[in-house]
Amino acid sequence: MSGALLGNITGPADVKALSADQLPQLCAEIRRTLLDYGKAHGGHIGSNLGMVEATVALHRVFDSPRDRIVFDVSHQSYVHKMLTGRAAAYLDAERYDEVTGFTNPLESEHDHFVLGHTGTSISLACGLAKTRDMSAQTASAEAEEAEVPPIGNVIAVIGDGSLSSGIAFEGLNNAAEQGGNLIVIVNDNEMSIAGDFGGMYGPLARLRASGGTAQPNIFQAFGLDYRYVEDGNDVAALVDAFEGVKNIDHPIVLHIHTLKGLGLAPAGDTAARRPSTPPHEDAPWHSDLCDLSDRDLHAGQCEASHWQSPDAAADRPDDPRKHYGKLAMAALEARFEREPGLVVISPATPGSNGITHAFRERAGRHYVDTGITESHAVAFASGIAKAGGVPVLATTASFFQRAYDQLQQELALNGTRVTLLDFLGGLSGSDNTHSGAFDIAMFANIPGLTCLAPTGEREFLDMLAWSTGPASTGPVVIRVPGEPILAAERAGSYPLFTAEPDASAADDYTGYRITHAGGDVAVLGLGNTYPLAERVAATLRERHGIDATVVNPRQCSTLDTRTLEGLRGSHRLVVTLEDGQLEGGWGEKITAYYANADSRTSTRAGDAAMRALNFGAAKEFTDRVPLAELDARYGLTEDGIVAAVLDAL
Amino acid sequence: MSGALLGNITGPADVKALSADQLPQLCAEIRRTLLDYGKAHGGHIGSNLGMVEATVALHRVFDSPRDRIVFDVSHQSYVHKMLTGRAAAYLDAERYDEVTGFTNPLESEHDHFVLGHTGTSISLACGLAKTRDMSAQTASAEAEEAEVPPIGNVIAVIGDGSLSSGIAFEGLNNAAEQGGNLIVIVNDNEMSIAGDFGGMYGPLARLRASGGTAQPNIFQAFGLDYRYVEDGNDVAALVDAFEGVKNIDHPIVLHIHTLKGLGLAPAGDTAARRPSTPPHEDAPWHSDLCDLSDRDLHAGQCEASHWQSPDAAADRPDDPRKHYGKLAMAALEARFEREPGLVVISPATPGSNGITHAFRERAGRHYVDTGITESHAVAFASGIAKAGGVPVLATTASFFQRAYDQLQQELALNGTRVTLLDFLGGLSGSDNTHSGAFDIAMFANIPGLTCLAPTGEREFLDMLAWSTGPASTGPVVIRVPGEPILAAERAGSYPLFTAEPDASAADDYTGYRITHAGGDVAVLGLGNTYPLAERVAATLRERHGIDATVVNPRQCSTLDTRTLEGLRGSHRLVVTLEDGQLEGGWGEKITAYYANADSRTSTRAGDAAMRALNFGAAKEFTDRVPLAELDARYGLTEDGIVAAVLDAL
Repeated sequence: MSGALLGNITGPADVKALSADQLPQLCAEIRRTLLDYGKAHGGHIGSNLGMVEATVALHRVFDSPRDRIVFDVSHQSYVHKMLTGRAAAYLDAERYDEVTGFTNPLESEHDHFVLGHTGTSISLACGLAKTRDMSAQTASAEAEEAEVPPIGNVIAVIGDGSLSSGIAFEGLNNAAEQGGNLIVIVNDNEMSIAGDFGGMYGPLARLRASGGTAQPNIFQAFGLDYRYVEDGNDVAALVDAFEGVKNIDHPIVLHIHTLKGLGLAPAGDTAARRPSTPPHEDAPWHSDLCDLSDRDLHAGQCEASHWQSPDAAADRPDDPRKHYGKLAMAALEARFEREPGLVVISPATPGSNGITHAFRERAGRHYVDTGITESHAVAFASGIAKAGGVPVLATTASFFQRAYDQLQQELALNGTRVTLLDFLGGLSGSDNTHSGAFDIAMFANIPGLTCLAPTGEREFLDMLAWSTGPASTGPVVIRVPGEPILAAERAGSYPLFTAEPDASAADDYTGYRITHAGGDVAVLGLGNTYPLAERVAATLRERHGIDATVVNPRQCSTLDTRTLEGLRGSHRLVVTLEDGQLEGGWGEKITAYYANADSRTSTRAGDAAMRALNFGAAKEFTDRVPLAELDARYGLTEDGIVAAVLDAL
Repeated sequence: MSGALLGNITGPADVKALSADQLPQLCAEIRRTLLDYGKAHGGHIGSNLGMVEATVALHRVFDSPRDRIVFDVSHQSYVHKMLTGRAAAYLDAERYDEVTGFTNPLESEHDHFVLGHTGTSISLACGLAKTRDMSAQTASAEAEEAEVPPIGNVIAVIGDGSLSSGIAFEGLNNAAEQGGNLIVIVNDNEMSIAGDFGGMYGPLARLRASGGTAQPNIFQAFGLDYRYVEDGNDVAALVDAFEGVKNIDHPIVLHIHTLKGLGLAPAGDTAARRPSTPPHEDAPWHSDLCDLSDRDLHAGQCEASHWQSPDAAADRPDDPRKHYGKLAMAALEARFEREPGLVVISPATPGSNGITHAFRERAGRHYVDTGITESHAVAFASGIAKAGGVPVLATTASFFQRAYDQLQQELALNGTRVTLLDFLGGLSGSDNTHSGAFDIAMFANIPGLTCLAPTGEREFLDMLAWSTGPASTGPVVIRVPGEPILAAERAGSYPLFTAEPDASAADDYTGYRITHAGGDVAVLGLGNTYPLAERVAATLRERHGIDATVVNPRQCSTLDTRTLEGLRGSHRLVVTLEDGQLEGGWGEKITAYYANADSRTSTRAGDAAMRALNFGAAKEFTDRVPLAELDARYGLTEDGIVAAVLDAL
């Protein structure tokens, strides 16, 4: 059956052309397609399975792209993509990579934004609606705005999990104030990425249980009109509900109750039940029950953002996030009993970062999921630290961007002893929405925030012990090692060079570590690029007879001018490597240090000016470009660096 | 009467020692003191006037500092300061500057955080409470955490205006989830900095009107227990209410209804009324009615964050924010009629940035106050642009930090044509919470975000016309000129050097402008430092016979390598000036450019390497340090730069 109808859907008009009684079959085909796609490819399958009927109904009722549908964080946009000319990318395994996991205007006129961070859909929708309503005011509007097609209904689709993020509340609060047509569809599947966390979810459950009549109703509390659809997986009911709000003249929340992961449970097995033992987290694909939540569950509900089938994942070792995340959690867990104030905080993304379900169960009150709330999480951590507790806040580099002001104000300005674990920092083949290439420029320019970049497991755990121990007095971010380091460690012959252990008892990590003392050229490899620095030095020595000095700077928040000055005289060239954006990053600071020092001491006789070469990323967004290709593009390769060094000398 | 009781209050114990019937007199003295202080010194007087009785009651009932009181954004902490040993700083005009406008642990053990940005108090309080409750779990806790005194009640005090910010909602949502003692006092004065904006304020008004019984109740919607106090300016009622929640075993919201600015209206004049004509905004101190809100008002309600008495302000011209803000608004307003999509957005801080009440009235739908919601405001602006509208979002540099992720994702990644007006960017004598020294490092390292730094009124308005016109295709931030430029423009002899008008019709501002072509030394003065660059060049020529080239770079987001290469050969030294943090900033990028270019072309014969000197701010927070002192500290002075140039040549 797979694809009999779906394969012929080239756009929303084809959905409208079906008879009403063909819609359930279309939904069944889509669900089957999602399941096959998910097993082979992975992705945010759970939320899409829950949104099959609603998405079909959306395109049945509304007129995309004239009616603008904004999918929050894009996780539930796969069905939308299938119905807007991109079905083949899901039906044909050969074409899986033709679409991204996020909405993207470059893919389709039915996608309006590139979105991958939570909670912004209502605000974006407010903007679309505002311009529509401004333009309608004057006769000249149509002409003036001719480059953008006219806008009909504006619809934001947002999950209950996304509602926990601050900007979503800001959007709700502004929607009613603004007035005019604006439809917020709340896809309530009772789940965030992991379970929902927050006080709002109790009243929300009672609202569902009452068929949308109970108070307090949080949407009405934001001044919004409100309707409820209990069976959010009944396509006919949804078509009716959407017809009822189409062309409405004021903002309204349409709250639909869906089942995340519907289709994963065997037919008929819909009774709520809780597994007696948690399923194995590394293989979160279960044909009968794939639920890893901490809460009472329905069959079919699913945790886990990016699913992989156990067949595909079986032979693969942990990726760096899970590998180093698990090590960190094990190190912290061993201290829980004697350190009552030690708390691990995750803003809703534990699994990806190695914070396993089993760990969370054992950690008890030592673990807090704050929901998708990076801003709160950072301020919360600062409060914990101010009270004498020891918080460790773990999330993805690009999500820390959502707490930039709290990093500045609540953490750095207040000098609280908080440890941030920065996952996926640096270059990777990630989506453009999740790039870690900007983390150094974000973190390392904040006064008083110590930014550590470990080059291996041992150093990573030492740094974590230090930042959470009494010797550290302020905020510290530790960039969790990435693929280059994990690969080097797994290869077994790394590191080539090892510095003498630091004799001083109190290593505060401000000093760079010279791991091999040579001359002429010094190669400084920050964090993930340190293995590359070693390889460059080895090649220079073996093939070109140049005994380069190798430096593990260990941190990128302050310059170790003592070590930098120590390189003078015996070195003519300093090479810095970093796997992040050069502009605003680390290496250029070292170059500027030497340049300014040289200019300011020009009247002194003696040493020649130090030359410099900086390697790192260009200032650009990249989208799913493989790491090796990025490295080549930026010259972060052994050959490229060696050639540049030889050229410069 | 002023100070008879207040003058003898050395701490909360003295408040507790008074008889109950002395409390109204204490409140009256405090109110009188605030009025005198406000007239002479300015400050956030309105919210403090409303919080007099509540703050007295807080210190009457709770045991600070064991009970931790966290004042959101600190605006309403003046009375708290008076009651915790700092009354003299308000009673004695000679000592006004002994305290800052914000809570500060360096001032008092009763202050727990340095706070100046909105909405974080609940999250911080959650952190304090979490550690208290974790520590209580084990016997060893007290010993372990001995460095931090034990914690009793944890109390967050937050205004209804602050509730509009996303992190406040995140905090509310997490408070109930966490459980344990946590008291959130909502100081509801029906006002934000300007009026309240948002859909929540209607239901909140009905909640007040019903004596706290109406639904929907937004606080209960977040799963929180709730109580209401109608007369939030009755000290006895507040003492009762606080006694009722002291040592409570779960989170609760205590909603108190106060009158912002109580004491400003003449006695007896408490009837709600609306002024027939808006009062003059430049003199927002009115003995009878100082209200500038767009909403129906009570007498005594006040807009305006930092009040100045008209006597003090009368002889002073506008500060740079108001001066250039008014110019920008006038330029935009002239276009409203023929450009229906042009929208000015302010996240709750219009007045300070020259967005006057009169302008807002005239702008109608062309002006949107989104409440204190920078994240929403940026995403909203992106939505407007995507729909073909032309948004201009104006706020303070340090507040843009609250939307950093939206700058990256919704704006830059999506490439929407949004103009940001960055007020108070660069060095100033501001509080540490409001420093603009970090804005270049924040904005200019985001790919695709054009960062313009005008050097005068004409250039500022040209840039605004460009960024909001059809030639611009992506997001642009314009750093509104600051004090050095306004002073130079007012002095009348500026600029000394003027470049030829650009012959090309389409100036996209990517090119630096050589305003005077000389040799040997090139001085590049970004934005606010451009007048200094001119003075340095004049001095070099007049006193030292050096004809320095002067460059107005105009932007700091991309390097104009054509101009930089053009300086080679004829110049030996490049000097960059910027009034922001050097690390992650602008000038060091130019230095790194030359250093890398020189290293990479070392095998070519010819030009000597370019030397460089970068002047800018150190990586540090500064608190109310006068601008001249900062300039001296960082060497951003004519003498300092000239001496360094002579030394380097």
